[in-house]
Amino acid sequence: MSEPRLVEVRRNVLKQNDLIARALREQFRSAGVFVVSLVSGPGAGKTTFLEKTLTQLQPRYRVAALVGDLATENDAVRLARSRAPVKQITTGTLCHLEATMVQNAAQDWDLHELDFLFIENVGNLVCPSSYDLGESLRLVLMSVTEGEDKPLKYPTIFNSADVAIVSKIDLADAVEFDWEAAQKNIQAVRPGMRIFRLSAKTGEGMDEYLTFLSRQLTELEVKQTPPAKMTIP
Amino acid sequence: MSEPRLVEVRRNVLKQNDLIARALREQFRSAGVFVVSLVSGPGAGKTTFLEKTLTQLQPRYRVAALVGDLATENDAVRLARSRAPVKQITTGTLCHLEATMVQNAAQDWDLHELDFLFIENVGNLVCPSSYDLGESLRLVLMSVTEGEDKPLKYPTIFNSADVAIVSKIDLADAVEFDWEAAQKNIQAVRPGMRIFRLSAKTGEGMDEYLTFLSRQLTELEVKQTPPAKMTIP
Repeated sequence: MSEPRLVEVRRNVLKQNDLIARALREQFRSAGVFVVSLVSGPGAGKTTFLEKTLTQLQPRYRVAALVGDLATENDAVRLARSRAPVKQITTGTLCHLEATMVQNAAQDWDLHELDFLFIENVGNLVCPSSYDLGESLRLVLMSVTEGEDKPLKYPTIFNSADVAIVSKIDLADAVEFDWEAAQKNIQAVRPGMRIFRLSAKTGEGMDEYLTFLSRQLTELEVKQTPPAKMTIP
Repeated sequence: MSEPRLVEVRRNVLKQNDLIARALREQFRSAGVFVVSLVSGPGAGKTTFLEKTLTQLQPRYRVAALVGDLATENDAVRLARSRAPVKQITTGTLCHLEATMVQNAAQDWDLHELDFLFIENVGNLVCPSSYDLGESLRLVLMSVTEGEDKPLKYPTIFNSADVAIVSKIDLADAVEFDWEAAQKNIQAVRPGMRIFRLSAKTGEGMDEYLTFLSRQLTELEVKQTPPAKMTIP
């Protein structure tokens, strides 16, 4: 069996990815851009959610997005309706984004001109979990239509994320979604994880999440600003 | 970059998988069991669909199921309610089943005692596409809640499948599902692909699909039976 060799080679790829991701994170930090990545299974509603996020943040912030898919430029076209700068990354047969793809895609942009950069990963609840993209915050989306058990079945990706978004709550009644069970399952896998319940379609729950994002940026800016005593000799 | 080495090693793993899958297919064929595998993204409804399939086939056929997940035995527990023999395969961090896992899991069963064996893959629209499991028929499920664009975004897995199942059609109106667009997208990726529209929850469309499955088994049996002239000396 060549399995051990595969594991070894994959480990090297991951190590290389981590080095690039670390450099990216430093670059994002020094440019003062807050980077949010989105992971989920296919069809959990990442693109609609991201389109609403871009549109609603734009009056106050400078935002941009990178979006990953195996094939098609569909999502970039959809997101471009928000009038934010958007780039599509197509991965071919690869089931996740890697730090080097983010680096290449973002290189034409002046990061100092941005407040938020969003990265929508390929729709997959497994592969993206091991790849650091240099993001400041990773959101994992699960839609109510997928069922309450997804955190237990895909624990690694829920563990790799910072915040959980339960999406499409406008459909919760139609699918008899059990909110208590979902919450319990998320907490079992990632105790203390912050959870937002929302519907990008109806707008319910979006305000609370956007306020949370704004606060994250403010905290980043506070960290960026040198303490007063250093500017006064 | 170690990418080319990774590709090479993966090719060897795939080659080995194909050899085992070929042996499995021959074993299934000679035992007269029709093997159906199910692939989809997480939460497309594979398990509910499979539970109904097992329950409704059982009065007439001997059925069994293998079910793959990264973690938990939840699906095996759910499927066991059908009273069919069921085994869970847990893959850890692996995003797909491999032929050797199917071989190991099925080895305690007398395949001659079965008419249908179902294999539910890990919920993933990318990884399972390259792994032959020795199945006779591969079904790809897409639920109406995932959106109409999934075939275009995950062309490889739709190409690797024989039949498409559009699931959860009871929710079609709530999500304003565009059936024409979905059908066009499936046909664009896999021209002539047979499509079933159904709801495992309400039962709508299940009969047509079950009749189709029965016919597949009959065709297998016709192939298995030696021509009459060979039994009469």
